Amino acid sequence: MKKVAILGSTGSIGTQTLDVVRENPDRFKVTALTCGSNTELLAEQIEEFRPEFASAEREEDAARFASRFPDVKFGWGRQGLIDAACGSCDMVLNALVGMRGLEPTYYAIKAGKDIALANKETLVAGGSLVMDAARSKGVKILPVDSEHSAIFQCLEGNAGRPLNKILLTASGGPFRGYSLAQLEKVTLEQALNHPRWTMGAKITVDSATMMNKGLEVIEARWLFDAPPEKIQILVHPQSIVHSAVEFEDKSVIAQMGVPDMRIPISLALGYPDRLKSSEPGLDFFGQGANLTFEKPDTSVFKCIGFAYDAIREEGSYPVVLNGANEALVDLFLRGKIRFVDIQDTLERVMDRHRPEYGLDLEGILEADCRARESIKEYFS
Amino acid sequence: MKKVAILGSTGSIGTQTLDVVRENPDRFKVTALTCGSNTELLAEQIEEFRPEFASAEREEDAARFASRFPDVKFGWGRQGLIDAACGSCDMVLNALVGMRGLEPTYYAIKAGKDIALANKETLVAGGSLVMDAARSKGVKILPVDSEHSAIFQCLEGNAGRPLNKILLTASGGPFRGYSLAQLEKVTLEQALNHPRWTMGAKITVDSATMMNKGLEVIEARWLFDAPPEKIQILVHPQSIVHSAVEFEDKSVIAQMGVPDMRIPISLALGYPDRLKSSEPGLDFFGQGANLTFEKPDTSVFKCIGFAYDAIREEGSYPVVLNGANEALVDLFLRGKIRFVDIQDTLERVMDRHRPEYGLDLEGILEADCRARESIKEYFS
Repeated sequence: MKKVAILGSTGSIGTQTLDVVRENPDRFKVTALTCGSNTELLAEQIEEFRPEFASAEREEDAARFASRFPDVKFGWGRQGLIDAACGSCDMVLNALVGMRGLEPTYYAIKAGKDIALANKETLVAGGSLVMDAARSKGVKILPVDSEHSAIFQCLEGNAGRPLNKILLTASGGPFRGYSLAQLEKVTLEQALNHPRWTMGAKITVDSATMMNKGLEVIEARWLFDAPPEKIQILVHPQSIVHSAVEFEDKSVIAQMGVPDMRIPISLALGYPDRLKSSEPGLDFFGQGANLTFEKPDTSVFKCIGFAYDAIREEGSYPVVLNGANEALVDLFLRGKIRFVDIQDTLERVMDRHRPEYGLDLEGILEADCRARESIKEYFS
Repeated sequence: MKKVAILGSTGSIGTQTLDVVRENPDRFKVTALTCGSNTELLAEQIEEFRPEFASAEREEDAARFASRFPDVKFGWGRQGLIDAACGSCDMVLNALVGMRGLEPTYYAIKAGKDIALANKETLVAGGSLVMDAARSKGVKILPVDSEHSAIFQCLEGNAGRPLNKILLTASGGPFRGYSLAQLEKVTLEQALNHPRWTMGAKITVDSATMMNKGLEVIEARWLFDAPPEKIQILVHPQSIVHSAVEFEDKSVIAQMGVPDMRIPISLALGYPDRLKSSEPGLDFFGQGANLTFEKPDTSVFKCIGFAYDAIREEGSYPVVLNGANEALVDLFLRGKIRFVDIQDTLERVMDRHRPEYGLDLEGILEADCRARESIKEYFS
């Protein structure tokens, strides 16, 4: 029985993680659940999964729930997430959105917990710090992102065999094939309408700008210790090939499947086992019958280039790129800026950034804060 | 330094094996070479690779070469192949065409040699016998067929994880999409014009009838201990996905690459290493940009069904199917019968066959002979 803490249990990945737990009641015990503002769903999840600990974003929600569920301990805010991650679990599934995912991952690693990682920012901002901590603690970091799970699967059984290239696939998002002029006219509604995956709002916008793919390049750099020049993006609109790896013999191993996050979630949770799924598999005579690949247009989707620049420069560059992007996406979601303002502003942020190196956790969090603050100045 | 005996060194796989050896002079030493009738090429290969032993099909060729190459021992015929396989090598690469590949594989296994197997008939006819011998001798059988090498690669790192399905890809051959009526009119020239792979005549005709894929189903059954109902054929005209495996979590791992046999050959020779290749890799924006999959038409390409029947029935069925097919392809190549006569005759052979079970090597060879003899009766 593996004891699992689920951070962000009411989001898209969180609810699908609970689907996997529900289908495997003999394998997993949920020890902690956390939500942001969706406390109604959290209450239902507590009823069903009976964790020892739960946490909400706001103190008043935690206080209200404490009386409703006397058997459950409650926390709130930043400390609540850390307590959830460092409790009595064997593994933390981190499905938090954004930078606030870094701290609980880091402290969970320090506490010796294996990590099922769906929070990109943990590695985008804290890559070096987090990977060093994981190595020194002997903790496994199992990717939950479909792309990184795919790469992880392609590398299994290939230990010690040098890789030539990581082929990171991208659906291309809703604006694939657009010119810069077309991108200028994009609306919020269009940006939230992703062709393949149903995800939260932040990541859906990141998919539309292709910053999501840029962040994934950075994540791959850390997870698989691959230099940026060995990571190549393949636009693959059908989202059937979840990513691939080319080895030195020019053999390519790819992982494929229906676009269903429960597959990578179940592998991370159940690792090293592959859990039996009762869902239909990939139909090569249906949705998998025609697979296409094309180059990303980096002259239109500039965020991809920023991500490569950030990971080449290292230090605080990825932190600032990520923090500024979060602030910009937030402004876009609130209707304050246009879609192209995201990448245009990021370009200026990156150009003007004076990097710092060798940051510890506090240093990373501060650099992130400054990046967010700087965005306010652009749009005040 | 791995010492390798190459059976069938003057054929398509044999010469490509020597390409791999030539590129890796520090890794491999060729201890034996064998040819059929292409003695001129064998002489060149002996000059270049200086094996200890060589063998030709005919005694007079061996005698002639013995005086020309006094440092090399020569053998001939059936015994020459067995001596080549059981000499001072660590590994035997068996690139013989047809049933005569079975005996040297079997004796090499008994002598404790690892096998790089490009000879399908070894497992089609001798599956149970050969796999039992390999298990009891602790000998590795490394597939060289691109499809089986792909499946082997997809299974690496997945030990103990039950597979749901083997997805065996097929180019579909030159007559993909043909009706039975169109197949009636096919000429020898058309049958020898394979769209993707350059191979010997026998296997090219087998690709055109799709018997090649049927034989590969039988081979996969033995190599990967998979029941026939778990082996599915995917027609994939681009020959980029060399095969794939679906696991119980519905995750599909596929191996891809340019259609270049040197990739699976180098993996089998260099295993567990992947040897660095200087050839261009797969271009996902070129030849790999559009991958399609479709069902095989088993009502037209009847050989597929015969192979599934043979492996379900086991015993002498696969032996007879293979032997009769070899005899029929030979008649077709000599212009004696029509293309569709191959599958029409095989249907009758299979219907009339009275199976034997538990055959030893002699029993298999005898059943094979009888199957070939029976073909003469159909066309006398």
